[in-house]
Amino acid sequence: MPLITLTTDLGTKDSYLASVKGCIYNQLQDIEIIDITNDVSPFNIHQAAFVLKNCYKDFPKNTIHIVSVDDEISPKNEHLAIYINNQYFIGPDNGVFALLFDEIKADKIFRLNITQKTDCTTFAIKNIFVPAACHIARGGTLEIIGNQVNDMEIKKMGLKSVFHENILKGVVIYVDNYGNAISNITKKEFLNYKKSNDFIILFGREDEKITKISQKYKDVPISEKLAIFGENNLLQIAINQGQANKLLGLQLHEVIRIEFK
Amino acid sequence: MPLITLTTDLGTKDSYLASVKGCIYNQLQDIEIIDITNDVSPFNIHQAAFVLKNCYKDFPKNTIHIVSVDDEISPKNEHLAIYINNQYFIGPDNGVFALLFDEIKADKIFRLNITQKTDCTTFAIKNIFVPAACHIARGGTLEIIGNQVNDMEIKKMGLKSVFHENILKGVVIYVDNYGNAISNITKKEFLNYKKSNDFIILFGREDEKITKISQKYKDVPISEKLAIFGENNLLQIAINQGQANKLLGLQLHEVIRIEFK
Amino acid sequence: MPLITLTTDLGTKDSYLASVKGCIYNQLQDIEIIDITNDVSPFNIHQAAFVLKNCYKDFPKNTIHIVSVDDEISPKNEHLAIYINNQYFIGPDNGVFALLFDEIKADKIFRLNITQKTDCTTFAIKNIFVPAACHIARGGTLEIIGNQVNDMEIKKMGLKSVFHENILKGVVIYVDNYGNAISNITKKEFLNYKKSNDFIILFGREDEKITKISQKYKDVPISEKLAIFGENNLLQIAINQGQANKLLGLQLHEVIRIEFK
Repeated sequence: MPLITLTTDLGTKDSYLASVKGCIYNQLQDIEIIDITNDVSPFNIHQAAFVLKNCYKDFPKNTIHIVSVDDEISPKNEHLAIYINNQYFIGPDNGVFALLFDEIKADKIFRLNITQKTDCTTFAIKNIFVPAACHIARGGTLEIIGNQVNDMEIKKMGLKSVFHENILKGVVIYVDNYGNAISNITKKEFLNYKKSNDFIILFGREDEKITKISQKYKDVPISEKLAIFGENNLLQIAINQGQANKLLGLQLHEVIRIEFK
Repeated sequence: MPLITLTTDLGTKDSYLASVKGCIYNQLQDIEIIDITNDVSPFNIHQAAFVLKNCYKDFPKNTIHIVSVDDEISPKNEHLAIYINNQYFIGPDNGVFALLFDEIKADKIFRLNITQKTDCTTFAIKNIFVPAACHIARGGTLEIIGNQVNDMEIKKMGLKSVFHENILKGVVIYVDNYGNAISNITKKEFLNYKKSNDFIILFGREDEKITKISQKYKDVPISEKLAIFGENNLLQIAINQGQANKLLGLQLHEVIRIEFK
Repeated sequence: MPLITLTTDLGTKDSYLASVKGCIYNQLQDIEIIDITNDVSPFNIHQAAFVLKNCYKDFPKNTIHIVSVDDEISPKNEHLAIYINNQYFIGPDNGVFALLFDEIKADKIFRLNITQKTDCTTFAIKNIFVPAACHIARGGTLEIIGNQVNDMEIKKMGLKSVFHENILKGVVIYVDNYGNAISNITKKEFLNYKKSNDFIILFGREDEKITKISQKYKDVPISEKLAIFGENNLLQIAINQGQANKLLGLQLHEVIRIEFK
């Protein structure tokens, strides 16, 4: 059974999300729809990309992922379908895919040319993305619904950490439901620059310090701060059973520094 | 595979919604349950009707829609099953159906006479609506679970816009997740009264003015206000990538006037 | 088709819940996943247990319930799979099962011994509970994935009501989406101590009084307070179409007394 996932800012209170699902069931008898999240902040493509980036690889081969944030069509914002890492992605060409992937092979990108059946141009997920996804779910090819793009430039929009004079500097790029502050410092970078076990992680209002990496939250007592690499291999600052974002002042874009000795 | 949808004020935090779904799966092996929304404000039949009205037509023929808001049975609030527009609707006779449909053919309405298996009278969706929906999903007829109602009067409860001396006056009837203020002024009414392109839309705290209808949100710059007809063909006041309800003072019941020249 | 339910504090905003669902679909073609709730307050095992306790019996035989709150493994917090009341439960050994069941037969408890495929120890639901659930869904036995526990002591953690000198005293243990304050006083206890229809229920800031049990919310006028036994047979204090928790000061742990004459 084909799978279609949804990553949107539609919310769960209005009729919009239900319309999308109704349209899918209207076109396909045998389909599973999975909500990645519909609680993306309106127009926040960074948040949408971060959430989907951290879970899409857990889905079966050939899963079809619809991303719908800021997707109204315009000369500057066309619609794409991409086949990459054995999965399909459908969404707007507004930078969300540059945030989602580290590299996109140009021969896998199609610009959608589906003709809408309605003159309503404000509901692209329903009128463009759903027909595209259902076409793919029925076994159709991308060539039928789009024009291949050969010369696409993907602007890299993700903020990278910076290394200078033995200091690795990153920022908080996401705060999760538990208040964990997740940075853009990868485990690979950390291991690359680390020469010994002598390092200090510095962050927050009061220049808080952590001098070791925990393997699990419970490595420290309840209410104590810790640094840990999560499943996404990004450094996060957390508090065992507490909210690091509030208690340590670690909101989005706060700087985290690692001084290596 | 039959589809059952849920439009309720049960929320997603308590056990109630899960009980409803568990009961459906207990009675049917092969069923798809779709949440329209379970975040209706407690007892708000206007909100429930508006949301379902704007999406039920997107669902396949013979979809079974359960509406559960203020559904405790009483002499004044019996339970109905209705077949209309090729779809089934099950819910309380508390005015929600009058808000949902512009016209109900009397020969399609049944008053449910299902006998509860429990003496708990406070959970009608579980003990009455779910058995009724499962009966229909198995191919059963409405005659088995209800008495046909022939003389039903549906009070029209929806607020209509008013036209007087070249002014069309409506109110905000819904504010969506993006802060768009949706009015009860329909595209049909607007086109009917519009004689030229010379008109002014007036609303809000500061008597804001808009003199054209946009085709998409991006017709205006970011943070600029606009007027647009959405997929539901209702006039909405919006801000491109902003929240019209907060920035323009467009809460529920605020008046929107259109002066035609 | 097997059913897997989820009761978690993962929220619906992050990638975590979607990862869990993706992993399940990756292992099983034919499965139904039902969210009991993913909105449990972080680390609140009482809330998780209360919600699941009140709905699991509505699910079909052999449903597999995953409970994931505070599930990071540690010497004091191992992982269990339990077969009880014809249903499977998988979760941490942190007291949540003692809150969930009144009695657990020791011959049905297994301590999970699944080897993780990753060295990430902070995501037990994905790396331990999902493989365990999928094993059971495929028809596998608990013996393959765990060691039977024979000498388990289940600490009873649920607060019981107390009866002394004709007064039955309980506390509010849950406040639902409608603001109904649900106590730990059972219908059975109430009927046991009640000798006549002469009793007073006392509670709240102002020592509010109720002297009868309603059968439905609408037994009293709108905005009026009432006492009622819900489907879970626990005494709740409610307001017809109002929020008892706010209007009557009935937050969690507030005392409710019944004086029998």
